[in-house]
Amino acid sequence: MMSATATLAEQAIITPEEFLQNWQGHRGLTRRVIEAFPEKELFEFSIGGMRPFAELAKEMLAIAGPSLKQIVTGLQESFDEKRAGITTKKQLLDAWDEATEQINLYWQQIPLSKFRETINLFGQFNFPAIVNLTYALDNEVHHRGQGYVYLRALGIEPPAFYDRL
Amino acid sequence: MMSATATLAEQAIITPEEFLQNWQGHRGLTRRVIEAFPEKELFEFSIGGMRPFAELAKEMLAIAGPSLKQIVTGLQESFDEKRAGITTKKQLLDAWDEATEQINLYWQQIPLSKFRETINLFGQFNFPAIVNLTYALDNEVHHRGQGYVYLRALGIEPPAFYDRL
Repeated sequence: MMSATATLAEQAIITPEEFLQNWQGHRGLTRRVIEAFPEKELFEFSIGGMRPFAELAKEMLAIAGPSLKQIVTGLQESFDEKRAGITTKKQLLDAWDEATEQINLYWQQIPLSKFRETINLFGQFNFPAIVNLTYALDNEVHHRGQGYVYLRALGIEPPAFYDRL
Repeated sequence: MMSATATLAEQAIITPEEFLQNWQGHRGLTRRVIEAFPEKELFEFSIGGMRPFAELAKEMLAIAGPSLKQIVTGLQESFDEKRAGITTKKQLLDAWDEATEQINLYWQQIPLSKFRETINLFGQFNFPAIVNLTYALDNEVHHRGQGYVYLRALGIEPPAFYDRL
């Protein structure tokens, strides 16, 4: 098993470890974007009728940890993007940090073969696990980019996009 | 070689073909975002001092094709995100379509081993090719998300984010 894994790591263009590192790098940046918002604007500011950034971050939370949990345990969580219990920046950041740990813990329990198995995430998204995980990452980058516009509109300099490598 | 490739395709969590498909899916969506802008706003509208969407799209063009060209041929292009010759939506869309073909053509010429070789892209970004390519994709999703806010601020419904699978 060890040598098979080593061979894969040399050949695959993206290994599980690299995918996780990239995602957690993005999640660290998203955390800094949350931090950059003033408390009130985090929950209230929006442009063009879009959701405030706290709601976008709650959607990311609703996807990340629960996706990993279902992939590893098979237990399907309900998709809860409201997270009604989170009403302050500190609560949002604490939930973010909990998800960071949850993702790291579950990630280590995903056998290589499982990444390519089809899973019906939240009973709605019936794709190979890696496609669902790629979607989760892309969705976070997409919405965080929107947070950058909110911050600029508020006259606040966002953290550097490339500060993840 | 065939069986080694087949084994890799079964084991890798992301194959070159899947990475390309995901990227071109995103590029198709970005093209529809360009199309959704009125001509004038594409080149002039901005929020919070940010670049208009045409300039963000030009940055994507400056990265995508030239990165592939350097990875395949070793020839380093200058990083030209100004693209002064592009002043209309049609020119931008035509350049987008040319890049789509260029990416597809070069992609087929990247040996598997090359994805993990370090390359100093544009003489500035000294990372394994796959890290540089992942950055290109993430950067596009990031900036396109900003385009969504521009469109919403203009009262225009953007294309669906998930319309890529």
